[in-house]
Amino acid sequence: MHVDIGNALAVEATPGVAEASLDRLDDRVAAAHDRITAGVGDRDFGYAGLALPADIDPDAIHAAVEGFDPEAVLTVGIGGSALGAETVTAALGLDGHHTLDNVDPAAATRLLDGLPLSETLVNVVSRSGTTVETLANLRVVRAALADAGLEWTERTVVTTGESGPLADLAAAPDLPTCPVPDGVPGRFAALSPVGLLPAAALGGDVEAVLAGGAEGRRALSPSLFDCPAYAYGAVAYALECRGATTNCVVPYAEALEPFAEWFAQLWAESLGKDGLGQTPARALGATDQHSQLQLYRAGRRDKLVTLLRPTGREDRPIPAVDADALSYLEGESLGSLLAAEFEATEAALAASGVPNVRVELDRLDAEGVGRLLYDMEAACVLAGELHGVETFTQPAVEWGKRAARGLLGGGEFEEAAVVDEKTTLRIE
Amino acid sequence: MHVDIGNALAVEATPGVAEASLDRLDDRVAAAHDRITAGVGDRDFGYAGLALPADIDPDAIHAAVEGFDPEAVLTVGIGGSALGAETVTAALGLDGHHTLDNVDPAAATRLLDGLPLSETLVNVVSRSGTTVETLANLRVVRAALADAGLEWTERTVVTTGESGPLADLAAAPDLPTCPVPDGVPGRFAALSPVGLLPAAALGGDVEAVLAGGAEGRRALSPSLFDCPAYAYGAVAYALECRGATTNCVVPYAEALEPFAEWFAQLWAESLGKDGLGQTPARALGATDQHSQLQLYRAGRRDKLVTLLRPTGREDRPIPAVDADALSYLEGESLGSLLAAEFEATEAALAASGVPNVRVELDRLDAEGVGRLLYDMEAACVLAGELHGVETFTQPAVEWGKRAARGLLGGGEFEEAAVVDEKTTLRIE
Repeated sequence: MHVDIGNALAVEATPGVAEASLDRLDDRVAAAHDRITAGVGDRDFGYAGLALPADIDPDAIHAAVEGFDPEAVLTVGIGGSALGAETVTAALGLDGHHTLDNVDPAAATRLLDGLPLSETLVNVVSRSGTTVETLANLRVVRAALADAGLEWTERTVVTTGESGPLADLAAAPDLPTCPVPDGVPGRFAALSPVGLLPAAALGGDVEAVLAGGAEGRRALSPSLFDCPAYAYGAVAYALECRGATTNCVVPYAEALEPFAEWFAQLWAESLGKDGLGQTPARALGATDQHSQLQLYRAGRRDKLVTLLRPTGREDRPIPAVDADALSYLEGESLGSLLAAEFEATEAALAASGVPNVRVELDRLDAEGVGRLLYDMEAACVLAGELHGVETFTQPAVEWGKRAARGLLGGGEFEEAAVVDEKTTLRIE
Repeated sequence: MHVDIGNALAVEATPGVAEASLDRLDDRVAAAHDRITAGVGDRDFGYAGLALPADIDPDAIHAAVEGFDPEAVLTVGIGGSALGAETVTAALGLDGHHTLDNVDPAAATRLLDGLPLSETLVNVVSRSGTTVETLANLRVVRAALADAGLEWTERTVVTTGESGPLADLAAAPDLPTCPVPDGVPGRFAALSPVGLLPAAALGGDVEAVLAGGAEGRRALSPSLFDCPAYAYGAVAYALECRGATTNCVVPYAEALEPFAEWFAQLWAESLGKDGLGQTPARALGATDQHSQLQLYRAGRRDKLVTLLRPTGREDRPIPAVDADALSYLEGESLGSLLAAEFEATEAALAASGVPNVRVELDRLDAEGVGRLLYDMEAACVLAGELHGVETFTQPAVEWGKRAARGLLGGGEFEEAAVVDEKTTLRIE
């Protein structure tokens, strides 16, 4: 991964970071790097995520899916238990990965009706084994398989913690299982069975994904000027402090759309605490130039725009036609048009003084996506260190879980009572 | 559409709107309503969009697709020429609508390779007829059809302005065409052939969509306390002024994911000017409770959260199983679980004092989506009136278009020279 922060400097952008400020910040980056290195070495909670590329044995993943040669993989999981797997399979261009990561009845029916169930591997993922959406969906899937005359125990793998209801459920029929790595929150678990099992089942090169991650770990260094991951994390942090409270993430590759969702969780749950944290806003290049660029250039000065692309990619020519208005397209390709739009948009933002950072991969392949995921995790951990927040927890999510459980009759929770006291001002 | 703004009041939320402030704002709403009514009556530029439900003749749409009974519709368009059609077909649950709205070579190849080309209707949409992405993609599609031994002129409909290169292109082979309505920017054109043709070709009830829009028009009234659309627009405006510079749009229905994209364009391009405008951040309920809720509750106090759901929907039971941890799910359904999560999340946001607005449709059907689109357009126009911005233009987009054209050799543009002068600080 390569990062160009030139358009985030104070000489270019408002808000922007003065080079002298970056120099001073670099001392704090060095100190944070020491803490990160120690935490990774000791496999401390959360930091253990940055040790995954070396700690994960791909053979255990292959063993779990051995004997399956599925046409489709259906991941039943939500949040960090789904987004990493979606990101990896999409980036690798693997067809056939689907996720049941919501409890929308219409969407569940649509998905299950469209799947070749007899050729589908069901991949259930929940660290705690108590995630309500996941357990509800597993019941729905089990019933759908039974209705199709299929035995769920013959086509299901489970990724979960060492103990818990899902581990128990897998034990009796002796389902193939993979462990969720210890001390790694879901959003930092993409480079583990949580993120890699569907890709492995569909023939993806998970060794190369892990190798890309390992390359990211080797590239960590005490100075932001020598380490793309830290350069990104430090600049995002510095810009947030200076007013860029939104981070617009714009991949110029449709295969990276799920990456933008994964990044949005990583950034929001890790850094959104203590009244801090950039709001991730997802977009897609070049499409959303026709949707969001007006706002980015002319709206509030509260945005960092992250422009992301692979520099090498398969191309497709724009064929010549006998008549049309755009003769200058002769000899161009979709790739050259996309590249021109990327650079034009970057310059358009700079011309308005909107800070933007260019993130580039050499290629969107297995190694490239492994590196990207690792580097963005490291960037996030660094930003958390610089802010001094608890990067690896998500305490604000619990209130709503208790309220929902109370509403469903799953126990006495005072939060559920609050739901009934809602202030109402309804306009019909 | 129904709107509940109770959780956006100052007694509940920070930022929040005092009821007395809303009363005072209502005088301005009445004045804005007068301007809107006059603009709609005169079909003034932009305001004409709010006259569409009555001005559009669905028979013209049916005539354009007559004789086609396609398995798939491929819309070639971008931004406002694609998002409305995606929103309508998804909301109606119509299978087979695809869009080529980017110039990503890999994605184009993937899409075209997967389509049943001989059973596909190509729907080309561009008001000006000069949109570079659309014309490039049309060339690619024409070549793909030719490679498959198919005649593009036998399976293509064109929606464009009265004159221009695309109108010329359609004239010679006498392709079926639909007009882009006069004086209506693309993002306000969903209730026209721009948004409705694919649905019509796939058997959707476009008359009912238009009827829903017409119902929205009839519901406009001079007071925000009597008009859901204005209530939403006025509260979003008031909260933005008080610091809610981000609008997190969270539909609790997967079929409304494209709606969130459509809304993001509507809000960003219409209101993102003069240093104003909320940044739309798209999310999906219940899934993104596991991704964004931590940030919404514990991050910066700069967010309005818009929670959107249909109150009536097809449901799916959660089957009983012999053993699992969540016995309280017995007798529940995916729909009841989703409803509990919606209300728990709303209460969780309120408990943290985060302003949120509940938007409800009775049902996600053709009439419901027509009403939703109309009401959100009216909300946006009202917010633009209250801000005093030029709601219907997008001047900040032009710079980048000129730069890209210059880079591609399409003429001399000083913007292209700026691209080469980029400030670089690259970390490898």
